[in-house]
Order: sequence, then C-alpha cells, then structure tokens
Amino acid sequence: VGGQAGSEGRPGEPTCRSQRLMLQAGLIHPTSPGCYCYLPPTVRAMEKLIKVMDQEMQAVGGQKLNLPSLCSAELWRASGRWDQMGPELFRLQDRHNHGYCLGPTHEELVTALVASQSGLSYRQLPLRLYQVTRKFRDEPKPRFGLLRSREFYMKDMYTFDASEQAARRTYEQVCHTYCRLFTRLGLPFVKVRAATGSIGGTTSHEFQLPADVGEDRLALCPQGHFAANVEMLNGEQTSCPTCGEKLTESKGIEVGHTFYLGTKYSSVANAVFSSAQNKPQLAEMGCYGLGVTRILAASIEVLSTEDSIRWPSLIAPYQLCFIPPKRGSKEEEEGAALLEQVYDDLAQALPHLAGDSVLDDRSQLTIGKRLKDAKRLGYPYVVVAGKRVCEDPPVFEVWNQNASEVLFLSKEGVIELLSKVQVP
Amino acid sequence: VGGQAGSEGRPGEPTCRSQRLMLQAGLIHPTSPGCYCYLPPTVRAMEKLIKVMDQEMQAVGGQKLNLPSLCSAELWRASGRWDQMGPELFRLQDRHNHGYCLGPTHEELVTALVASQSGLSYRQLPLRLYQVTRKFRDEPKPRFGLLRSREFYMKDMYTFDASEQAARRTYEQVCHTYCRLFTRLGLPFVKVRAATGSIGGTTSHEFQLPADVGEDRLALCPQGHFAANVEMLNGEQTSCPTCGEKLTESKGIEVGHTFYLGTKYSSVANAVFSSAQNKPQLAEMGCYGLGVTRILAASIEVLSTEDSIRWPSLIAPYQLCFIPPKRGSKEEEEGAALLEQVYDDLAQALPHLAGDSVLDDRSQLTIGKRLKDAKRLGYPYVVVAGKRVCEDPPVFEVWNQNASEVLFLSKEGVIELLSKVQVP
Repeated sequence: VGGQAGSEGRPGEPTCRSQRLMLQAGLIHPTSPGCYCYLPPTVRAMEKLIKVMDQEMQAVGGQKLNLPSLCSAELWRASGRWDQMGPELFRLQDRHNHGYCLGPTHEELVTALVASQSGLSYRQLPLRLYQVTRKFRDEPKPRFGLLRSREFYMKDMYTFDASEQAARRTYEQVCHTYCRLFTRLGLPFVKVRAATGSIGGTTSHEFQLPADVGEDRLALCPQGHFAANVEMLNGEQTSCPTCGEKLTESKGIEVGHTFYLGTKYSSVANAVFSSAQNKPQLAEMGCYGLGVTRILAASIEVLSTEDSIRWPSLIAPYQLCFIPPKRGSKEEEEGAALLEQVYDDLAQALPHLAGDSVLDDRSQLTIGKRLKDAKRLGYPYVVVAGKRVCEDPPVFEVWNQNASEVLFLSKEGVIELLSKVQVP
Repeated sequence: VGGQAGSEGRPGEPTCRSQRLMLQAGLIHPTSPGCYCYLPPTVRAMEKLIKVMDQEMQAVGGQKLNLPSLCSAELWRASGRWDQMGPELFRLQDRHNHGYCLGPTHEELVTALVASQSGLSYRQLPLRLYQVTRKFRDEPKPRFGLLRSREFYMKDMYTFDASEQAARRTYEQVCHTYCRLFTRLGLPFVKVRAATGSIGGTTSHEFQLPADVGEDRLALCPQGHFAANVEMLNGEQTSCPTCGEKLTESKGIEVGHTFYLGTKYSSVANAVFSSAQNKPQLAEMGCYGLGVTRILAASIEVLSTEDSIRWPSLIAPYQLCFIPPKRGSKEEEEGAALLEQVYDDLAQALPHLAGDSVLDDRSQLTIGKRLKDAKRLGYPYVVVAGKRVCEDPPVFEVWNQNASEVLFLSKEGVIELLSKVQVP
C-alpha cells in the first residue's frame, strides 16, 4: 500500500514539508496515490476547522446541507462539464449502466435542487447553501500530501440572488467572510484576481497562502494595490496599474476560490424565482470553495519549522500537553501530584480546555525527550513539571510554542496564561 | 432528476411512511435512485446523532479517524471481497486504469493501516478505531428513502485485541454501548443473532427496530430469552430453546450490526503486534456498524404518526418552535413582546436551547395553521402566544408533541418545563 503511494515524487519520499511532517507525526497515512487515511489528531483539527467554517458561513446566512457524491452523467452533460472536465473526473457506471461522476464540485446538483423548489419567491432570496463534504478529482499528478490529493474535503457554498446587484453584494460579503476566517486562523493570505476555469462565470478570486511549494504564480504590487494570479496578466504587464511600481512575483497555495457565476447554471436547470412583478426570473448565482484538508496541510506548510509542526492555535488537535517528571527522579511523586492539581484547577476554571489536554505519561522517558516530541507534534502549549516544581510555591515550565518562548509560572500564572486560549 | 428517482416504487410514489414524511417536510430531495440531498434540518439532526455516537464511541475508548472512499482493487482482491461482493460494489478505474471500489465498509483499509504500524505492542491494545463517513453500495433495489439508499452515512468501528478473550470482551462492551445509544434515543430495539454475510467472522448480532416496512424477519421469544434473524433458524425451530414458548415473528429495520471477526482480515494483511513474549501475533478483530442516515429515517418510521414527524427528542433538528399571535389580532403586539421575553429569559437560563429554537414569524397565517405545520415538522415543543397570553400573569400554550399533551404555563413554568430538555 505504502509503495503505491510512493509514486508521488521519488518512491516513498515526501515532496514537501507539510507532507513530510504529517507523515512523521502519524497524522496521515497513504493508501493509494492522492488518497490518505486521516488519523485521530488530524480528524480533531479538521473538526475544529469545520466548526470555524460553520460559524463564519452561518454568520453570513449560510444554511448547511449535504449533497451526494454520485452525480448523474445526464446532469453533467446538460451543463457541458461532462465533456469539459475530461480525465479529471472520476467516472463510473452502476449495475444498470447508468453513468455517474464523483462530484468535484456541485453546481449542477444544487442548481437542480433549487430549480425543483416551485413557488420560490424573491422574498426568500438570497439563498446561501453550503456543505462540507468529500470531493473527488483524478489529478494527473497527485502530490504534496493533502495539498494536492485525489480525495479531499471541501467547504462549498452556492448562492442564489434576485439580481446581479444583489449577487455582487453576496460575492463581496462571502469574500469578506473568507478574509475574516483566514485572519482568525492567523494565516498570512492574499486575495488575488483569478481565472474562472472549468467552473465558469465572469469574476473570480483566489485566496492564496504564499509558499515556495505553491503551484500558482502570483503577481503582487508591493504597495498592495494589485494582486493577481499571473494567468490573469497580459504578457507585457510588469507594473502596478494603480501606482506603477514593479510587480513582484510569489508562489502561492490556493486555499479558497470564489466565482461570480451569473446565470450560467441557473439557465441550464431553469432555476427561477418569481419576481416582485410575479414573473419567473433566473437566479443570479455565485459559488465559493474552501479546501478543508488543504488548509490543514497548507497551514502546516507555512507555519512550521523544518522539524516541528506548528498549527494555527485555534485548530490545533490538542491545545495542551502536560509532562510529569521522569520516573525515579527526586521530583517524581510531588511533581506528578502538583501537575495533576494544575490540570484539575484548569478543568474547573477553563472547562473548554479539559478535553483539549494530553498527559504524556511515558515517564520512563526523560522530560527532554518528551518535550522534543511535544514540540515536534505542535501542541501550542506544553506544561512541564521540571526541576523547579518542588520550590515553594511550585514553579511550572510553560512552553508557548507558537511564540517560541518559555515561561516559569505559578499554578495561578499557568491558568491565567491559558485563559486566553480559544477553541472553536 | 425527480423522475429518475421515481423508479423507487411506482413513479414518484414514496414507498413508506418515513420517505413520504421526509419528502413532504423538505428534509430530503432525490437526485438519482438511492441518492438524496439532505436538506438543512436533516443535516442538523444528523450532526446531533453523530455527536451522540462520538460520545458513546469515545466512552468505550474509540479513536476517530477518516478513511478514503476510493479503495484499491488489489487490497480487495487480497481479502477476497472484490469478487465476493459482486454487483453491490461500485467499481471504477482511474486515469491510469488502476481499479478501485467505493468502500461500503473498510475492513481492508483499516487492517492495512494497523499492519503498517511496526512495533505495535500488546501494551497498546485494544485499539478501537472508528469513523463516520459516507459509504456506497449499488443496491439492486434502492427504496424506502434513506432506509435503503446507495449512498449513505455509516459509523463503523474496527477493534484490535491481543487475544480472543479480550476481543470477546470488546465485543460485549461495544454491544452494550449500542444498547445504551438506542436507549438514549428512546428507540424500541431488539438485539438479534444474525448471519455474518459478506463481512465474515464467527459471531454476529443485529440491532433491529421492529417495523412492518422492515426487510428483515425476526423470531422472538415472548419472554425475551431468544431473539434471532430467521436466517439463523434451522427449518423446524418454532419454539424458544430456553423456555419452550412459541416464537413470534416480527419484521425489523436493521440499524446496527456487530461482527466478531477473529483473524479473517488480520491474517491477510499480516496485522500483528508483539506479544508479552515478544513474538509477533495476529490481532483479533471485531467490526461494528451503525447506519447514521438509516437511523434518522428508521426513527421517523417507527415514532411518527400518519401525518406528523416525530423525532427522538435528543436529535430533533430544532427543539423548540415559537408561534406569536396572528397579525391584526388583538393579542398581536403584547403577545409578540411577551413571547420574545420568554425567548430572552430562556436563552439566558438555558443557553444550549437558544440555537435550537425557531420563530415562526409568518404572522399572516393563523396560529392554527402554523401549529399544524409545527406538528407536522416534529418540533418536540411548540410555545404559542394564544388567547390567554394577555391574562395577568400571561399564560402560554405549550405543546409537548412526543407526549401528545398541551400545557398552559406561566413564563417561569415554560422555562421549568424546558429545563429538562437535552441537546447532545
């Protein structure tokens, strides 16, 4: 199994930092090219990320639904994408020889759903429907672990408005929400103009995390006036259209993509609402994607050091690791009891962190060895019962990994420090 | 699209109560035979059900992971299931002509994962790994809505133990957990002996909800000494082997299935651990499934009345519906304000219910019409600002749907009543 997955890069060799770190830490396990098992810490991070997405999507009026993976060939032929998508589409036939594809996105299905709601009135618009589901894409070169896989999770939202003006407003609102989401995650991102590709429509932006391993090339104005995927430039454009400064180039990992679709899909499915004049009118659509599993890997790619994972604090699988003294040390008994007291008081004062804590009770190992593991795995905070735990009052060693600092704190100080830690 | 889905039963005609009620209430929308969009209230119920499952699985030491849908043909050929499953397996080829199936269950993948963990020690066992993911099965006759669909969600757990004795203990513990889960949901269930089918193994039980529409036939001792799927009886058996009473027959909907697998899969994948004697030894396995979307539909099937949905209270999409007075009624203004006060006080006293409440502000409709809708949709509680809301002190009408009773209560009485309502 592992051998087959090795067809990414040289056999068995990870091709980027996030893939290497995630494999080493046991966060993912390859099964087939571009297909991975997500192991328990990854599922925890993913569920937290989905919670953040739910909050943001619902803040902008999103309603969550869930669409099937099996999409009928008829529906995709009607939109033209059955032929257009070519070999990127996984295709199959059922026992009655009906054709299906495994949905990479769901414009066709969701538009057919809205078209089926007879009696939809302009008063019920906008509709903002989203899902967080597994998607499929038969990539020519699956690689970079979860950055470019063939099976992945995506948050996709589809919006239906009564006019182009309203749909443009929706577009701005969702883009704004995406910016807020990446800001909450503490990720450095740029929003760039982008091509509409196989999805279609007339306006499109990508949300990119600058990174050398990124597969997109971005042209950026150093003053921030202009940002585009280079695919959008005409050949000669080398300076900012606003201030004239020379554009700089950066590579980026695409983590979000927005499209203003107009009536491309609603006209095919006849997705109409009745207007204020009681006339049937085509809905103006937009679609908006965020790569869930890709954001996990891209975060690790851009935040981590060479040998230590760093998560966005908000979605780290666990916020806290507790390390009691080594077995047989002179602090062993008292230190373990005092550390347990920190945990108990913490669970009382900050109950949301109780389930986000791990006790590394492999006390046959030195503190140093366990601390190294904890740093490698990317717990935002590590609380150690070290040499000074037997002082009066006891002093705990707290590693704030994302700030790369160590603090020596009393029990109350530890709880005070951790009171600012958020879980979604 | 709807037409194609009509191939279940007569064209366009739902074939059982849950399917009819779920279609009428806009909970599901068919796309292809046996494939459904789950609309927002269904997603809410499903997410609550998954939360209950997470609680129960984690209480028994379960660790949540997530396995790919695309399962390589090689892996399935090795276990023998590639041929054995026949046309029930959705099969496809990727762009390099490698064969895959869409996983209906994941014994092969999870066993390969465990086999890849070199250095697994008996001290790390038992391992109890589970996921809640979309599964695929090309049913010969998809029908009954979410009761027998081709794409569905399943909670599947796979356990790895160091000895048969330990694995039998795990089996009992997981069965016990399943019983507790169905009890928490308030569902009448029976645990019956069952055949092992294409999964294999030596011991198996099904968890069945008795219902006429069920596709399994069960033989039950009226005293509760014996319960089996009739497939397990030898031809002549008509009485209880313990007390001799005549067995009664009932139909059932299978909502859970447990298998003691032994080494059927671990021997194929060489999933070993090192024993206390430091010898490699095959893990003893079990697997355990709960149909997530099937439980939603089966609950509605067995709890609902002819024209009104009843959910297990714990997982109802929303716990509460508030109905303010009709527009233009003499209670309109005061009643709406008083009802809002109930909501505000409730949100303060019982914050977990704040997001579980719906305000039916279609005040152009009579209270009676909206109450009928609320009953049809299955809110466990409906709070109405009716005629008596202008009394001093104000009296609210509270419909407890699952108990089929109406109560007339003060604001404090409403909050007192609702304080016992649980959300997972």
